[in-house]
Amino acid sequence: MDWKTKISEQAEKMKNVSLKSLGFTTEQKNNFLLKLYENIEKYRDSILRSNSRDVNKARESNLPEPFIDRLALTNKRVDKMLEAIGVVTNLPDPVGVKIWETDRPNGLHIERVRVPIGVIGIIYESRPDVTIEASILCIKAGNCVVLRGGKEAKYSNSILVEILKESLVEVGLPADMVNLVSVGGRKSVRYLLSLSEYIDLIIPRGGESLIETVVQHSRIPVIKHYKGVCHTYIDKYADIDMALKVAVNAKIQRPSTCNATETLLVHKDVSKSFIPAIMEIFMKEKVEVKGCKKTLKIVSGIKEATDKDWEEEYLSMKISIKIVDSIEDAIEHINRYGTSHSEAIVTSCNLNATKFLKEVDASAVFHNASTRFTDGGEFGLGAEIGISTDKIHARGPMGLEELTSYKYLIYGYGQLRQ
Amino acid sequence: MDWKTKISEQAEKMKNVSLKSLGFTTEQKNNFLLKLYENIEKYRDSILRSNSRDVNKARESNLPEPFIDRLALTNKRVDKMLEAIGVVTNLPDPVGVKIWETDRPNGLHIERVRVPIGVIGIIYESRPDVTIEASILCIKAGNCVVLRGGKEAKYSNSILVEILKESLVEVGLPADMVNLVSVGGRKSVRYLLSLSEYIDLIIPRGGESLIETVVQHSRIPVIKHYKGVCHTYIDKYADIDMALKVAVNAKIQRPSTCNATETLLVHKDVSKSFIPAIMEIFMKEKVEVKGCKKTLKIVSGIKEATDKDWEEEYLSMKISIKIVDSIEDAIEHINRYGTSHSEAIVTSCNLNATKFLKEVDASAVFHNASTRFTDGGEFGLGAEIGISTDKIHARGPMGLEELTSYKYLIYGYGQLRQ
Repeated sequence: MDWKTKISEQAEKMKNVSLKSLGFTTEQKNNFLLKLYENIEKYRDSILRSNSRDVNKARESNLPEPFIDRLALTNKRVDKMLEAIGVVTNLPDPVGVKIWETDRPNGLHIERVRVPIGVIGIIYESRPDVTIEASILCIKAGNCVVLRGGKEAKYSNSILVEILKESLVEVGLPADMVNLVSVGGRKSVRYLLSLSEYIDLIIPRGGESLIETVVQHSRIPVIKHYKGVCHTYIDKYADIDMALKVAVNAKIQRPSTCNATETLLVHKDVSKSFIPAIMEIFMKEKVEVKGCKKTLKIVSGIKEATDKDWEEEYLSMKISIKIVDSIEDAIEHINRYGTSHSEAIVTSCNLNATKFLKEVDASAVFHNASTRFTDGGEFGLGAEIGISTDKIHARGPMGLEELTSYKYLIYGYGQLRQ
Repeated sequence: MDWKTKISEQAEKMKNVSLKSLGFTTEQKNNFLLKLYENIEKYRDSILRSNSRDVNKARESNLPEPFIDRLALTNKRVDKMLEAIGVVTNLPDPVGVKIWETDRPNGLHIERVRVPIGVIGIIYESRPDVTIEASILCIKAGNCVVLRGGKEAKYSNSILVEILKESLVEVGLPADMVNLVSVGGRKSVRYLLSLSEYIDLIIPRGGESLIETVVQHSRIPVIKHYKGVCHTYIDKYADIDMALKVAVNAKIQRPSTCNATETLLVHKDVSKSFIPAIMEIFMKEKVEVKGCKKTLKIVSGIKEATDKDWEEEYLSMKISIKIVDSIEDAIEHINRYGTSHSEAIVTSCNLNATKFLKEVDASAVFHNASTRFTDGGEFGLGAEIGISTDKIHARGPMGLEELTSYKYLIYGYGQLRQ
């Protein structure tokens, strides 16, 4: 059997399982999660051994250190997996929840209830923790999940998927609720993206080029988790002390994340008090600063920021500063250079806050708080499969509810359409 | 300027307008609708004249009569447009509505509010009524709309879009909230589908081949309004009298619609009472019937239904009948041959109804009512832009709410991420 046939037969099987899975109960899915917890604990050593094989090969191939860091599993990372399983077990089941109902004049009672989406394809890089985290979220929401991870995590993914399957079977659920695509090499991605008959949704997780490839070739709906070029705007009416704390937190609390702030926009009226004060902190914290022409007049010894800087997701201890003439200019800059991720205003003026929150086009807009808060856990969703920068279906942190669709149930007693 | 530049410049302008439109009020949008109503009344004769030019050309080209029927505007159809404008004016504005809120332990108050999607592309055939109906729904939900209609409706669409633009400008809204793609010929569709930077969502409206083309080539999210192969299942515990009425209504009340039933599934235990009785009605109503092997044993003089029949959307006075051994067989047949549109069970057994409603994979599942009820108006949504057979973002009748996205607004007083 050639690899295409193998993948499409696997996907077809999963589609059939997904139709059956409409009837699975919360108890069945939670039993699976409890069993998975047990099994990961039980096979901890084998998981770490398999992962070592991947890591050793990656080192032999001289892959870069940050890559190996994402690939490597440690006891602490396995503990994190277990913790995630615990969290998802305790989350309420979104499936079957009634989200709307109405009684029509003709006596029809109509309900809208959440249902699983079906088969979800996760296309990701060599991060074995994603294998578990994506699978548990998809399955808790009643979906089947087809995983296509990076080839460098081959041994890790293959033991993890075996454990997932064993846990499913042990509680009486079909092993085909999860599958790993392990044939076809690089070409398998494009082939997977053509199987719209069997796969309902694709979620890519990874860098820009992976996402670009997926969007370009997919015939299946895609929800993107794209980069975050986030801004913090210090308004004319900002409390400067609060502005300093919020801006510093947004930049340096964890600069490698997508919700870290990359550009500070500062109203001209507060620029002379705010910018020197934050520069002092940035110098101490070793943040590299670039500034617009006007900023250069206040601060010496920093480079000028170019258009490229306004578009760049630094993901590191770098920041660009721009002085703006008005809140309108700030909003325009954000809507032009932002990636619709997380944006913040610091102001004590309610009118300006309202304007900013309304007119900024982003998944999360903050008033007097750090952009770093965009996160499923922080928003109270419990867990997230990623942060959508799309506007269709899911926007911002994507939790269990966003992994469901809905259907209409209509109850009658013989009504006919006139 | 070549046609590609023209289209992309138009789309870019609309993207910019859509960012501004986040601030438009319900009053502004309703004023536009009222003005549009006035202007369509005012220019009624010119609209009908322009449409006559299209119709005459279509007749000269010997286009088929059903095509010309969809193209032609009459006074009655213009009245229908006006009626639709009235309905949409009176619908509540979905934008700005809070759909979720939470208070976090750290004092952050988080709200999720509906916002416009942005720029929506409608790709459709030569139906000038769609030009108005799609535009008013998109604009009421705060979106810009780029229309790419069939070339045979050229004169009709161009006067209608002129009137739309004039009405926008007269109430102080940007003319670029609506645009018609009138250059590039057939190639303009594929080009439009590549402009993911400017267009947020594509909604194709038309036949199978149009939808196939759009899905195959789009780099922009698409919500499909695909065909409806709908079933009515007559359960073992059906009230036969009700079953006859519901099944007949589902087939013949308006057979050309996507929610009309194409296949009757009949439990074997009631087949001998139900099938002869419904055959009598179908004969009288001149419905062409095909049946499975078992049906042929009960009814003589009809053709055998093949696999092709189970997959076909007749859209006419034709129906296929299949006798099934159990409710499980009925569900399996539907999940295999259905198009996730509208499905019904007639039964007096609540257990079977619950099973059917849960396990059938479709946008609308009916208990003891006609599949013909799947419709935005009938569901109380007020109006619809179509019926989505997708599971992502919108499923079933797609009204104003489904033409919106949402964003998170987060209110703090200096909170920092730990």
